[in-house]
Amino acid sequence: MDQTKIFLSESEMPRQWYNIQADLPTPMPAVLHPGTKQPVGPDDLAAIFPMGLIMQEVTTERWVDIPEPILEAYRIWRPTPLVRARRLERLLGTPAKIYYKWEGVSPAGSHKPNTAVPQAWYNMNEGVKRLATETGAGQWGSALSFATGLFGLECKVYMVRVSYDQKPYRRMLMETWGGQCVASPSNETNAGRAMLAKDPDSPGSLGMAISEAVEDAATRADTKYALGSVLNHVLLHQTVIGLETLKQLEMAGEYPDTVIGCAGGGSNFAGLALPFVRDKIVDGRKTRIVAVEPAACPSLTRGVYRYDFGDTAGLTPLMKMFTLGHDFMPPSIHAGGLRYHGMAPIVSHLKDLGLIEAEAHQQNPVFDAAVKFARTEGHVPAPETAHAIKAAVDEALRCRQTGEKKTIVFIASGHGHFDLASYQKYFAGELVDQEYSDEMIHAGLGTLPQV
Amino acid sequence: MDQTKIFLSESEMPRQWYNIQADLPTPMPAVLHPGTKQPVGPDDLAAIFPMGLIMQEVTTERWVDIPEPILEAYRIWRPTPLVRARRLERLLGTPAKIYYKWEGVSPAGSHKPNTAVPQAWYNMNEGVKRLATETGAGQWGSALSFATGLFGLECKVYMVRVSYDQKPYRRMLMETWGGQCVASPSNETNAGRAMLAKDPDSPGSLGMAISEAVEDAATRADTKYALGSVLNHVLLHQTVIGLETLKQLEMAGEYPDTVIGCAGGGSNFAGLALPFVRDKIVDGRKTRIVAVEPAACPSLTRGVYRYDFGDTAGLTPLMKMFTLGHDFMPPSIHAGGLRYHGMAPIVSHLKDLGLIEAEAHQQNPVFDAAVKFARTEGHVPAPETAHAIKAAVDEALRCRQTGEKKTIVFIASGHGHFDLASYQKYFAGELVDQEYSDEMIHAGLGTLPQV
Repeated sequence: MDQTKIFLSESEMPRQWYNIQADLPTPMPAVLHPGTKQPVGPDDLAAIFPMGLIMQEVTTERWVDIPEPILEAYRIWRPTPLVRARRLERLLGTPAKIYYKWEGVSPAGSHKPNTAVPQAWYNMNEGVKRLATETGAGQWGSALSFATGLFGLECKVYMVRVSYDQKPYRRMLMETWGGQCVASPSNETNAGRAMLAKDPDSPGSLGMAISEAVEDAATRADTKYALGSVLNHVLLHQTVIGLETLKQLEMAGEYPDTVIGCAGGGSNFAGLALPFVRDKIVDGRKTRIVAVEPAACPSLTRGVYRYDFGDTAGLTPLMKMFTLGHDFMPPSIHAGGLRYHGMAPIVSHLKDLGLIEAEAHQQNPVFDAAVKFARTEGHVPAPETAHAIKAAVDEALRCRQTGEKKTIVFIASGHGHFDLASYQKYFAGELVDQEYSDEMIHAGLGTLPQV
Repeated sequence: MDQTKIFLSESEMPRQWYNIQADLPTPMPAVLHPGTKQPVGPDDLAAIFPMGLIMQEVTTERWVDIPEPILEAYRIWRPTPLVRARRLERLLGTPAKIYYKWEGVSPAGSHKPNTAVPQAWYNMNEGVKRLATETGAGQWGSALSFATGLFGLECKVYMVRVSYDQKPYRRMLMETWGGQCVASPSNETNAGRAMLAKDPDSPGSLGMAISEAVEDAATRADTKYALGSVLNHVLLHQTVIGLETLKQLEMAGEYPDTVIGCAGGGSNFAGLALPFVRDKIVDGRKTRIVAVEPAACPSLTRGVYRYDFGDTAGLTPLMKMFTLGHDFMPPSIHAGGLRYHGMAPIVSHLKDLGLIEAEAHQQNPVFDAAVKFARTEGHVPAPETAHAIKAAVDEALRCRQTGEKKTIVFIASGHGHFDLASYQKYFAGELVDQEYSDEMIHAGLGTLPQV
């Protein structure tokens, strides 16, 4: 019998997260205070994050223990299956083996609960009563609503307007778990009101919504802020994905030639990739590790590696990252979770060091790959995930050309149950692929802060 | 570590379906020709079903081999996890143990692919090019679109109008897999046109949609009909659920005191229950086995055990079953998958023999149980599934009263990702529970055929 899925038992689940900072050939650039432009310390972040997470943000310990209550909540859906995509391989006629790590089995339908659960727990553990956050496609807001519900916290989600309108079910999902969701820009914060004054019809952006959530948290004593991607502690939590995948591949007698993930803020990509990056650094593995982004928001492939704010209003510390400028307003592509002007500092650093690669794709070929996947492997993927599928399909087709029997692993970060309107637009031929000129892509670079 | 999920490996998957007909204390009543009222033979069914499935409909062999291509497709999502609902237990303060068999991990999000895949395969195997079917909530239509896609068949789905309007994403899901979906009653069949002439605003019903799909299949040489519940071969395929559950419980050192499933046509209930019914018959087990239905469509609890048609137009053979009459028009409750006038003949027979019980619940307490489940166990269940949850919660609360440490197992037949509008109505207080008088419930009994 040809095995399709590789399951781990719960007792084989990782009990520690992996911290790439322990193994970097050169350390991460400092995070700077937005006013003084001096390196920030833990105390500077205490207004919006609990100390447990701040310490994870800066630690250089290689392994960080996962507290038992978090493991217990992980066991609601983890370990997730690693699946051999035999039907997709057959369709493509490739000699390559394609595996995907399927994070769509989580209650919120994506990898996001891997960090939502620890973030909610560490906040609860320090007496925080309420979390404020932003969400793009809605995956993160759903995940945090789910996680805060488990630990009895309130949750306020600022959802990018264009997704709020396109995906009403995402809001309903958050509310079913007890979360509260408003469209961003909203009238509920100074940042939101300022944005609405400038453009009452603003479609919103992740950067804008972050400004609103950070302001909410900074101005309420009972509230902290939670970010679904970008930051070091978020990527740390997501490494359960890659650690499980390593074990599952070992059970199958495999080691990958190519590791692929889509990249918006960078957390699902890093969650799969970081343990494999470690093997490149420590064991000299030659794995090709690829971050895939949309052509409409190509921070890694066409951005600059500079200090920038994480949000639009310039409230966050300055992080060195590949960025299109915090003023960059990405087109309303349907992969809302990839519409972010910057990239996680860790992912950016690895790209700068040449340890990972990046590529960008247009919407229509991405949806074409998604439909190929859905009609062979069954699961309908999120449009974000479909970017990774597109890159995996391309790699498998190259193997058909060359005859190479590569082993390709990608992360299927979530299902597309709330994204079906985008599939309809694709089938109706309503998705437009366009060339993005340097002028468009670099329009936001003029406002980069001087550091 | 307290184990939460019990996984089987793929090599532990059942390789045979279980046929309760081999173990019944009295045989099933004959199925009758709608014209002659004489027992039908295999040839009478050949116009709408392939012979492979017809033989499964009538066989009394105890074990039926699952062909390898079906096993291979099952491995896309099977075996499914059995989950200990520890968080729900804690919320209820019950000494009972609650397990749920989680079928929501399938690509279509429910148990329906367990039979959609074999039905598609047996049809393909006999050269059929196209399948016609009906769907209520959309679970079955999605599942068959997924399955026909795997084996290269076309698929036409007649979807009950009220669900078609409430759940546009279900239609989009079918189309993503290549299926074609129309609202029923439609203008595409004689049965549909007749119904529309009678009531242009008809909300439709499963019985109506079945009439349309049967007519489609009977009038096209390239097309057969596929039914998502009720029939013996459908229940046979679903026994993979109960067979896996038996193994998983054995791994946990458990045997259930109470087995629960929601029942519309009866297939998810039977899929879990039949192997446990066997243990009652063969080993004298005393398990309480409970089918749960909506108060608005209570065939098992308030219907009569009589010969009736499976559809509204009276095109199908006559089956002895608990029925509210094939003319019964259930109110537009949100558990669309449970809006069926009859009940699977096997389930009806077991109820008549006293081997299973039934209970009925109103919508609001059902959604209350669903939200309790979502906020503890994470997964947002389908409204159909929520009926089983309601019964499991009630049983667990009884155990809190009595102190009994019962082991309760229920089937979580699917997720509610496409049912969130119903949750919103529940939160908004817009769902109405009403007493259904005998006059309302038995309005359809006057047209029962004389046999």
